[in-house]
Amino acid sequence: MYNYKMILTYDGSNYNGWQKQKNTEKTIQEALELAIKNIIKENIEIIGSGRTDKGVHALGQVANFQTKNQYDVKELKNHLNKELRNDITILKISEEDERFHSRYNTKSKTYIYKINNSETQNPFVRKYTYHLPEKLNIQKMKEASKFLIGEKDFQVFSSARNNKKNTVKTIENIEILSENNEILIRFKGNGFLYNQVRIMVGTLIEIGLEKHKPNYINDIFNKKERSFAGRTIPPHGLYLEKVYY
Amino acid sequence: MYNYKMILTYDGSNYNGWQKQKNTEKTIQEALELAIKNIIKENIEIIGSGRTDKGVHALGQVANFQTKNQYDVKELKNHLNKELRNDITILKISEEDERFHSRYNTKSKTYIYKINNSETQNPFVRKYTYHLPEKLNIQKMKEASKFLIGEKDFQVFSSARNNKKNTVKTIENIEILSENNEILIRFKGNGFLYNQVRIMVGTLIEIGLEKHKPNYINDIFNKKERSFAGRTIPPHGLYLEKVYY
Repeated sequence: MYNYKMILTYDGSNYNGWQKQKNTEKTIQEALELAIKNIIKENIEIIGSGRTDKGVHALGQVANFQTKNQYDVKELKNHLNKELRNDITILKISEEDERFHSRYNTKSKTYIYKINNSETQNPFVRKYTYHLPEKLNIQKMKEASKFLIGEKDFQVFSSARNNKKNTVKTIENIEILSENNEILIRFKGNGFLYNQVRIMVGTLIEIGLEKHKPNYINDIFNKKERSFAGRTIPPHGLYLEKVYY
Repeated sequence: MYNYKMILTYDGSNYNGWQKQKNTEKTIQEALELAIKNIIKENIEIIGSGRTDKGVHALGQVANFQTKNQYDVKELKNHLNKELRNDITILKISEEDERFHSRYNTKSKTYIYKINNSETQNPFVRKYTYHLPEKLNIQKMKEASKFLIGEKDFQVFSSARNNKKNTVKTIENIEILSENNEILIRFKGNGFLYNQVRIMVGTLIEIGLEKHKPNYINDIFNKKERSFAGRTIPPHGLYLEKVYY
């Protein structure tokens, strides 16, 4: 068998997330499998580095699939990009060792969340950036973000639908960049629980709005109750940015 | 009567252009008139600085309307932005002299056209930037653009549907900027004919693809036949950027 790794970007707006579903709602994985099947005439199964939820975007999702025949990666990429709708783009395909597995071999990932902190909506980013007109105190958010870094039990920052047994994860780094009222928050970690990034951003926003002090993050970890953390912020500002192996 | 000037931005993707139509297709003008009527309970008529075609965007369209009552411009703007769908945003409203007329008083306008000249589509700009994977020779396009500057009869660069009697217009300046395969072409002029910007860009692209030499522009002016100019490039890369008074 030959093993192909893809790096891809997608606008998640019109998809019910990454993961193939039993019901018929359209997902990224299904769209890709169908396109590949149409090109190479083999049934294949795609393994993603992880799921992205309904409405979440990707700048550098990674996935792999195994085939019986060998293909020219450049040609395969071009054919696939013609076959796919233009809300999914394959950036690169490479042939990898048979043992490469997009999910098991993941070392860390970065996610970014984009906020438009202008008074007015910008029509051109409305589907790709969360609009929050109330002014955020970026300095307070940066201070608060320090309390999220490290190896911690993030269960309290995950949705009730989280079904991972191990809720201890490590956040290596959080960057908060702000320019012309556009705020970008980047999280790097070895893994993230269901809705974790969106709840962490929701919590940082409450601190940016000065509803809580930066060290409130510690109170949330100590209280161990989901209700103390911020709300789950909408998916359309969230991007899986990069997967590290 | 009170006279209000609005500066507004819109994503034209879902509209049949600026101008109100007899049939029922949705236009920017109609959406605005309806929103204003809902807020101030007066029937008003909006005058735009000019039409934008179906699918064309605006960063700084200007329009004005007259009312019987006086309004707080800041409040009116906020109410209108709540009333409008989020693909249209009012950036500013100001009260003007009764004689101010958005169309008649226009001195010049800038339009920009955005091209994604990467090999692959970028899903996040696919509705806002024209994707052309074939590499463009920017230097040749810059040379060619010089031949478009000045007071000239641009009829040959306009669509057959153009119904303006005076087809002599002045282009004051053309800028072509290129960074990371994103190309931006900015046209400043005292007026533009129907489809003129899109046909000029179509022609510059043919020169960028080295199908013609830069001075081919002069041949087009001399031959006075539409068929010598380039094709009308799609609307989704075009933005009315700014109106000068």
